[in-house]
Amino acid sequence: MDDSLRKRAVGNMSLAAAQERLMLSFRFSPETERIPVPKARDRVTAEPVYARQSMPSFPASAMDGIAVRAERTRTACPDRPLRLTEGVDYHPVNTGDPLPKGTDAVIMIERVRRIDERTVEIREPAVPWKHVRSVGEDVVRGEMILPAHHHIRPVDLGVLLAGGVTEVPVVAKPRVAILPTGSELVPPGKALERGEIIEFNGTVFSSYLEEWGADPDYRGIVGDDPELLRRAILDAVETCDWVVVNAGSSVGSEDYTRDVVQDLGEVILHGVATSPGSPVLLGKVRNKPVIGLPGYPVAAYLALEWFVRPLIDYWFGVKASPRPRLQVRLEEDVKSKEGREHFVRVSIGRIGGRYVARPLPRGAGSTMSLARADGLLRIPSRHGPIKAGEEMEAELLRPKEQIDRTLWVAGGHDPALDLLVNLLREDRSPFSLSVAGIGSIRGLRSLGRGGCHMAAIHLGDEGDGGEHRRWVRRFIPDKEVFLLRLAVRPFGWLVAKGNPTGFSGPEDLSGSGVRLVNRQEGSGTRLFLDRLLQEKGIDPSTVDGYEREVSSPWRVAAAVEDGSADVGMGTLAVARRFGLEFLPLRKEPFDLVIPLEVAESEAGKMLMDTVRSDAFRAAAASLERGDFVGPANGRAYNTDRFRKGRSGKRS
Amino acid sequence: MDDSLRKRAVGNMSLAAAQERLMLSFRFSPETERIPVPKARDRVTAEPVYARQSMPSFPASAMDGIAVRAERTRTACPDRPLRLTEGVDYHPVNTGDPLPKGTDAVIMIERVRRIDERTVEIREPAVPWKHVRSVGEDVVRGEMILPAHHHIRPVDLGVLLAGGVTEVPVVAKPRVAILPTGSELVPPGKALERGEIIEFNGTVFSSYLEEWGADPDYRGIVGDDPELLRRAILDAVETCDWVVVNAGSSVGSEDYTRDVVQDLGEVILHGVATSPGSPVLLGKVRNKPVIGLPGYPVAAYLALEWFVRPLIDYWFGVKASPRPRLQVRLEEDVKSKEGREHFVRVSIGRIGGRYVARPLPRGAGSTMSLARADGLLRIPSRHGPIKAGEEMEAELLRPKEQIDRTLWVAGGHDPALDLLVNLLREDRSPFSLSVAGIGSIRGLRSLGRGGCHMAAIHLGDEGDGGEHRRWVRRFIPDKEVFLLRLAVRPFGWLVAKGNPTGFSGPEDLSGSGVRLVNRQEGSGTRLFLDRLLQEKGIDPSTVDGYEREVSSPWRVAAAVEDGSADVGMGTLAVARRFGLEFLPLRKEPFDLVIPLEVAESEAGKMLMDTVRSDAFRAAAASLERGDFVGPANGRAYNTDRFRKGRSGKRS
Repeated sequence: MDDSLRKRAVGNMSLAAAQERLMLSFRFSPETERIPVPKARDRVTAEPVYARQSMPSFPASAMDGIAVRAERTRTACPDRPLRLTEGVDYHPVNTGDPLPKGTDAVIMIERVRRIDERTVEIREPAVPWKHVRSVGEDVVRGEMILPAHHHIRPVDLGVLLAGGVTEVPVVAKPRVAILPTGSELVPPGKALERGEIIEFNGTVFSSYLEEWGADPDYRGIVGDDPELLRRAILDAVETCDWVVVNAGSSVGSEDYTRDVVQDLGEVILHGVATSPGSPVLLGKVRNKPVIGLPGYPVAAYLALEWFVRPLIDYWFGVKASPRPRLQVRLEEDVKSKEGREHFVRVSIGRIGGRYVARPLPRGAGSTMSLARADGLLRIPSRHGPIKAGEEMEAELLRPKEQIDRTLWVAGGHDPALDLLVNLLREDRSPFSLSVAGIGSIRGLRSLGRGGCHMAAIHLGDEGDGGEHRRWVRRFIPDKEVFLLRLAVRPFGWLVAKGNPTGFSGPEDLSGSGVRLVNRQEGSGTRLFLDRLLQEKGIDPSTVDGYEREVSSPWRVAAAVEDGSADVGMGTLAVARRFGLEFLPLRKEPFDLVIPLEVAESEAGKMLMDTVRSDAFRAAAASLERGDFVGPANGRAYNTDRFRKGRSGKRS
Repeated sequence: MDDSLRKRAVGNMSLAAAQERLMLSFRFSPETERIPVPKARDRVTAEPVYARQSMPSFPASAMDGIAVRAERTRTACPDRPLRLTEGVDYHPVNTGDPLPKGTDAVIMIERVRRIDERTVEIREPAVPWKHVRSVGEDVVRGEMILPAHHHIRPVDLGVLLAGGVTEVPVVAKPRVAILPTGSELVPPGKALERGEIIEFNGTVFSSYLEEWGADPDYRGIVGDDPELLRRAILDAVETCDWVVVNAGSSVGSEDYTRDVVQDLGEVILHGVATSPGSPVLLGKVRNKPVIGLPGYPVAAYLALEWFVRPLIDYWFGVKASPRPRLQVRLEEDVKSKEGREHFVRVSIGRIGGRYVARPLPRGAGSTMSLARADGLLRIPSRHGPIKAGEEMEAELLRPKEQIDRTLWVAGGHDPALDLLVNLLREDRSPFSLSVAGIGSIRGLRSLGRGGCHMAAIHLGDEGDGGEHRRWVRRFIPDKEVFLLRLAVRPFGWLVAKGNPTGFSGPEDLSGSGVRLVNRQEGSGTRLFLDRLLQEKGIDPSTVDGYEREVSSPWRVAAAVEDGSADVGMGTLAVARRFGLEFLPLRKEPFDLVIPLEVAESEAGKMLMDTVRSDAFRAAAASLERGDFVGPANGRAYNTDRFRKGRSGKRS
């Protein structure tokens, strides 16, 4: 085995043990900064803060009215009103005015009758100290305003200033060096050569660190060279409190972080028993934490939160609140291996009063899946795989209140769905739409078992709704549903510009060297291809690329564009967006399947109104450059409702 | 009635109707800014953002291993291993490397056996496209990365950059002018003259506006002069999108906001049916919102949230999530008048598995109460008063997870409690301590009915614990409790320096012109005074100031310092902090009353350990400058446990 192929073992410590070991390896003594109060939001107090003066600093009127000496008003009663003279017996006061010397009570203006310019009359005695704010009623000198290690909010600035405090002692932020490593990395904005990757983890790290209260120091890309990395780490520990290296903490031939840290200081641990996120390196150089994080984005961000966030909280002496949790029912099986804690991104919907979670693509690199996730399942290392229907607790990444107001569409995809998502947002609708592109058949199946609010399907309908109705009846036999047409799309073959392989039809897929890129099972596109091959009597095992499945029409187009495939299936819109050639096959209706109870809900009505709006039709027409034809058969079709057991006829 | 006393009616519209009227009065067309992605955290997208390039932009190895053409490996099996030659049959690849031309699969390094420098052996065929990341597997060109009106988080920066987007279109922030008005206001940091008030609402407004995403423009204090206000508003609408005026929106003689807005534009509404927060003015000048908020801090911040926050969300086209809610049991009665929605700040504790809410001081000016609040009760306008024991929903101002980890002490107050609060934080304890200074007897009563975790009492114990045990038995007859001594404090009369009235004892309180400042009923101090008066045969109604109750020892000292009272009762520590003269009466033990189940909980053990720590004793001794003597009778007393029905003897 040569060096480039040798595998060094990565440790397998549990996440909790690794976190504890990290915390026990360091003691921080952050400095205290004294900063002006107006700049103190989101900082953390370094010591308790006591009021230096009282607010109010004088006894003050709490009402608009007159200030009096209460004992001089004792005789006033309805039968014998008492007359008072301004400047002698009373002084007019507004709310907040200091109580004039010699007075100890305020009578509300509503209880005072004017007699003349300088005379008023009252009909009941004043109560001593009534309607008077004592000195320090709000904040009193000597009182502790804020304890140590308190996260400062806007309202705290008010109590600080009210208490005469203009500078507040806060914990200095930890300065964290961020060192992206990898010769394949290039800065954002560069036109990519083959093999180059945009360095974006560093920007995400910086942004998280700022959000968590630290001071990130992005130090630019370091090439794959142990000497460069060594120098970068040594420079960083000079001026920073901690160093984050990304990546190079795995065991590939260009993963130098471990050796460099070992050489410069000490490796605390290497590798944790998680999936994703296992190739983590925790080290110490010049007594400062050096943390190597995985290169794959999702793994990197999870590991940043596991190891760097607790360090930040420990530095500041605050306790981060754990994320809110929610009991969810799994909509699909979740694989997990014993011996590792698994972290699974899920989308969560509130469907029929229950919270349903659908696992998102699990690749460690799938940044989109993290961006789209509503929650995170944390599967303990001794837990086996999870079956669809099981209940589990999810950590929430979006507020429950937002999840409650989201309609879930699962199934096929069309740009018209994105349009709907955006139109609802433009309209300031209280409801959002989220889309799970899992293919038409899986969408229908999910709807049938209560896994989403609506399905989006394109399953070979001829335009009359008959075929779609048959599919709906098969998967949802016992529910009343609407079909709402969003688009009728030209559908066909996508090939590279100029059609270099001269592809002309399914017959060319077998034995002619043409490479297909296929869609996943359960998608309308795959179903259509399979039927076509069957009709033509073509054995799929003879089709080059038949087993190469991608999960969206864009990924088909991307594979054809990239030249790793010669042909795939998709819509005209996708072909045009990628500058591919399009060989039409048919017009394909794209429908929403909406159960009656959803259609009649507030959210459902709003959605259907939006689909029928001029704004949607106009935008959809321009969006699709010709392949969007709008609701096919007018309103009658849109609200086509059919019931269990009926034939295919319209109701 | 002269002008200075005339009362103009303020409207009484419901909060919800007022909010709706405000929203219907404006349509905003915010500009779109294109900003660099790294600066986009917490901004809001102005339009949907689509991926401009795919990530990965080339088919890439998903594993460390060798890249091969799958069909050339078909014959490999355990019985007949296949040998491959580097550069001909295979290419070594690391994770993330581009797939070499002519290859379509990767074999994991673990499945490869090295034969020599350029030869390896495999025992099973490669699966086409296995361990290969397709082009666009993470982000694919054309895909919608972020919808319109999306609040951008750190992870979103990653998907934007991955998708080749370097600038993101965001909604420009609304610029909001902040005009504090009032001739009594002075900037923070100035030494206060009588009648002057520090202007701090503007700083709090600015900070909230920043937190909510707006761009505050603090424009300095405007004196009480309609012409100045007029000019300030006209200047502000020139450069800002909205104007917030604070205060002058009530009906006092110097409340000009209404007239000025009426004159410059239009008053949309004046006054809402809330308590606090009713004197709100919503207006329009040059088609821009001008919002007058109440002067009292709590009212001002609530009204800011009611009216300005929804405008900000409307401007950005986002939906703020409502605050999380929690069912709480009221620990005390809550007064509320029908016809007004009441907003009551509460502290919330999790006690015996239930959430218990205690109303905080309700003055509109009590900034501290808002800073300390855990939640907010919103009592509908048709709801009558609320009785102790009733259940209600509270909006949470602190995360539930923090509330769950907070120990509540209710009762008397001593600086030793602040010390404990801070020591627990210094120690990075997972638990916090919160203190409700409600007086010793109310504290005991609250503990008896499960309203707090512990009571803090000073009720005339002689130092042997006998008197405190009697009180505990009276209010908590059926629970096993510990008494934990925190301090023994010199207690006595507080008088101004030099004792100008020559006060010498309780006999001087009656008829001699000496003015008392009293403590509230249920406090240990009040109880002691009442006993003293009874012993001396003094009728409280003859004591000047007997009815003037304040709710903390500092407020007693502040009243004596201010000269509005001549004498009050308190500890030596308070006298010293305020530079007052101290006439000693006795030594007063200050004890924590801790039920067994609390003492034995994780949080309780930690608290008791902290009290017994050297750090606490040392800090307490220095803090109190001589009046803290530490646990009185050593460990035996500290853990003094007694049971229902036992006599006062030690157990």
